[in-house]
Amino acid sequence: MNTTDTIVAIATAPGLGAIGVIRLSGKDAIFICQKVFKGADLSIQKSHTIHYGFVMDGDMEIDEVMVSIFRAPKSFTTEDSIEISCHGSPYIQQQIVEVLIKNGARLAKAGEFTLRAFLHGRIDLSQAEAVADLIASANKSQHNMALQQMKGGLSNEIKSLREKLLNFASLIELELDFGEEDVEFADRLQLESLIEKIIAHINPILESFHLGNAIKNGIPTAIIGRPNAGKSSLLNVLLNDERAIVTAIAGTTRDTIEEQFIIKGISFRLIDTAGMRESEDIVEKMGIQKTYEKIGEAQMILYVYDVNLLTTADVLADIKPLLKEGQRVIICANKSDALKDEFSTVAIDAFQEQLGEHFAAFVLMSTLSKTNIDVLKASLVKDYIATVTQHHVILTNARHVDALATAKESLEAVLTGISFHITGDFLSIDIKRSLHALAEISGEVTNDEVLGNIFSKFCIGK
Amino acid sequence: MNTTDTIVAIATAPGLGAIGVIRLSGKDAIFICQKVFKGADLSIQKSHTIHYGFVMDGDMEIDEVMVSIFRAPKSFTTEDSIEISCHGSPYIQQQIVEVLIKNGARLAKAGEFTLRAFLHGRIDLSQAEAVADLIASANKSQHNMALQQMKGGLSNEIKSLREKLLNFASLIELELDFGEEDVEFADRLQLESLIEKIIAHINPILESFHLGNAIKNGIPTAIIGRPNAGKSSLLNVLLNDERAIVTAIAGTTRDTIEEQFIIKGISFRLIDTAGMRESEDIVEKMGIQKTYEKIGEAQMILYVYDVNLLTTADVLADIKPLLKEGQRVIICANKSDALKDEFSTVAIDAFQEQLGEHFAAFVLMSTLSKTNIDVLKASLVKDYIATVTQHHVILTNARHVDALATAKESLEAVLTGISFHITGDFLSIDIKRSLHALAEISGEVTNDEVLGNIFSKFCIGK
Repeated sequence: MNTTDTIVAIATAPGLGAIGVIRLSGKDAIFICQKVFKGADLSIQKSHTIHYGFVMDGDMEIDEVMVSIFRAPKSFTTEDSIEISCHGSPYIQQQIVEVLIKNGARLAKAGEFTLRAFLHGRIDLSQAEAVADLIASANKSQHNMALQQMKGGLSNEIKSLREKLLNFASLIELELDFGEEDVEFADRLQLESLIEKIIAHINPILESFHLGNAIKNGIPTAIIGRPNAGKSSLLNVLLNDERAIVTAIAGTTRDTIEEQFIIKGISFRLIDTAGMRESEDIVEKMGIQKTYEKIGEAQMILYVYDVNLLTTADVLADIKPLLKEGQRVIICANKSDALKDEFSTVAIDAFQEQLGEHFAAFVLMSTLSKTNIDVLKASLVKDYIATVTQHHVILTNARHVDALATAKESLEAVLTGISFHITGDFLSIDIKRSLHALAEISGEVTNDEVLGNIFSKFCIGK
Repeated sequence: MNTTDTIVAIATAPGLGAIGVIRLSGKDAIFICQKVFKGADLSIQKSHTIHYGFVMDGDMEIDEVMVSIFRAPKSFTTEDSIEISCHGSPYIQQQIVEVLIKNGARLAKAGEFTLRAFLHGRIDLSQAEAVADLIASANKSQHNMALQQMKGGLSNEIKSLREKLLNFASLIELELDFGEEDVEFADRLQLESLIEKIIAHINPILESFHLGNAIKNGIPTAIIGRPNAGKSSLLNVLLNDERAIVTAIAGTTRDTIEEQFIIKGISFRLIDTAGMRESEDIVEKMGIQKTYEKIGEAQMILYVYDVNLLTTADVLADIKPLLKEGQRVIICANKSDALKDEFSTVAIDAFQEQLGEHFAAFVLMSTLSKTNIDVLKASLVKDYIATVTQHHVILTNARHVDALATAKESLEAVLTGISFHITGDFLSIDIKRSLHALAEISGEVTNDEVLGNIFSKFCIGK
């Protein structure tokens, strides 16, 4: 792939808008823009300045524009770059791109601007991937994960893991140079201890993929309870509030709105347990394997019951047999509007005690009078944040999981090797394999196929 | 409408893109942006400079952005303005707009940025309307008309008409002040002559609306001819070439592609004369009123015939009874690939002579061997340009037509008044009405309803 020429593309979303932006990057970006620009002499202008003028095709005006100059290396790609802000007509944008191509630019491929930023070392591969995630992010949780990754969260973790290994790798390499003398520069015990530490570090990152995926697609949530507990009402309250927020500002569409509710930007995806919305008797049908499985997919369970009908023991009897590892449950004591006696705090303690690590919150609430719905939402958010902050880095990308898993596997092979007292040259192979896998995440080692795969998923202009 | 507060909107097209732009305008634009911006101190930065940083919602980062500063009066609205260039995620753009609203900005109404540019005298009303036309323009001809109007083509014409009238208007006003002395400061003969000149100036502008409309919607074009002359083949050749161009660069859709062909950016709209595409015998059915009417709608007629079968006299007999005022015809002598004898130039002269002002071009061509298709296209473009350049200004807006027609009507009333020797106070009423109508075009006089009508058609963010 040619990375020395000057590329051009429309950078804004397709369709009519007030403004459209065309982006140029490469050593001739300023020169090519000048050829079609009637206005200031761009060649003598400072970086990060904006210039009014016209884009011309020969004598013919295409549009009145503002040209922004970014000089190398202070640009996204680290190359000389230009952004032309024109009227947001697809026709005009197309004309401007065409005239720039006619004057020496090349139409950029999908993701080619970001690819250049990567190839020139401005960002690593996992950050480049985060740019695409960031653009595609549709809610706060996705957005935060992408932003953290873009700012180098994962990269820094990987870098620190690699640095720790590299020292040993070079000591072992040294041993190989002195191969016939049978020396051990690399202390096997220290190496073993280091590798165990690294694996202990990798494990939670690998495990975070499950959470990362959940966040990316919405935290799988099941609303369960006996008939007439108020499951549908609760669902409607959660969905309707969200709808009001979504329609307040135009420009976003969420296709799967019926299956999602978003609280403070965190997306919860409803697990459609059979008949959940029709208020059928889930609990009575608990024996049915399929419903069990469905509830098993949930990460968060909202158990709704009529606080005037069931005892704490009834509720615990309903829930306890259901819960699987890692699942969290919020007890929604519904119909507080009709509550005759005060609810005993002792009972809440019982929930906490009996449900242990599964217990997220207890909310005395009413879907009818809309009492404490805010408390329920706050509990959902609080539990989400508690879960997320347990993790330093959250994986969302299958490529990173594969690479980390390979790194871990290789490190385990090193441990096995050490325990069998195998020689440095064999240990070296596995350590290198592990380093290689880690380097793949940041893109320090990569190949065209991998890059092609990653950047082809970008939009053109990014 | 409040025009002193600070407005905000997403300025780029909705949907995913590489870049999104959020626009702020108003006296607090820089101050409000600073409140959410982690980066340079914007308050001390020069106009037309760009600054890297982060948009924050409290402690929480929303996005990595570039902020462009435009200081009053050097901005589109003439107010202090900010453009925030962020990642092109609808979610992020929405978040940024929300945090700016939270910090004191107001969500802009449709067209409100352009409205402010108008209210602050940066552009007049016809130029503001041209901004919307420019964004909506889907081909070169629409685009050129909008660009010319945006640059003040129509405004200048109207201004010069008004200035000519204003002098007389004030002289007549003076007469009214001296009402009882029965003086005539304004020479009636000079006034008459001036008004006649102005009407003579208004007439071609009014007439240009027909052309303007044709250009806006595509020049109505009929392909006619006897059976098997090659009408369908010609149509396919014209449509297919266009399709290839359209699909070359993504991002534009033209819904009515089957009914349009575009040559050098000029759109021709096919008049669907009955069975035209099925090669039925139009000419034999000429007697049918409906077909006549349809062909009557065309501004350009492509008459196709088999050059090996018909004589010049045959062709003229086919066409001449059809032609209506203002229609132009290109004679397409098809099947030149099978031509046995040289075609006589004398015959071309005969076409030119017999068809007179209707004659646009004669093209000896072949749809089979694709000979001279380029010549035909060049003839279409040349004839379009010749027609357009006859007009100094081309009207495309019904509001302008109404206002100009009112101005003309009032001026005619002045002429009638003068011929009946009516007094200055009555003449004054009609002159004022005429001035008022002209001022409506530029927006020097207007009202909220008119403005509401015009700007509600804009997109938000413009």
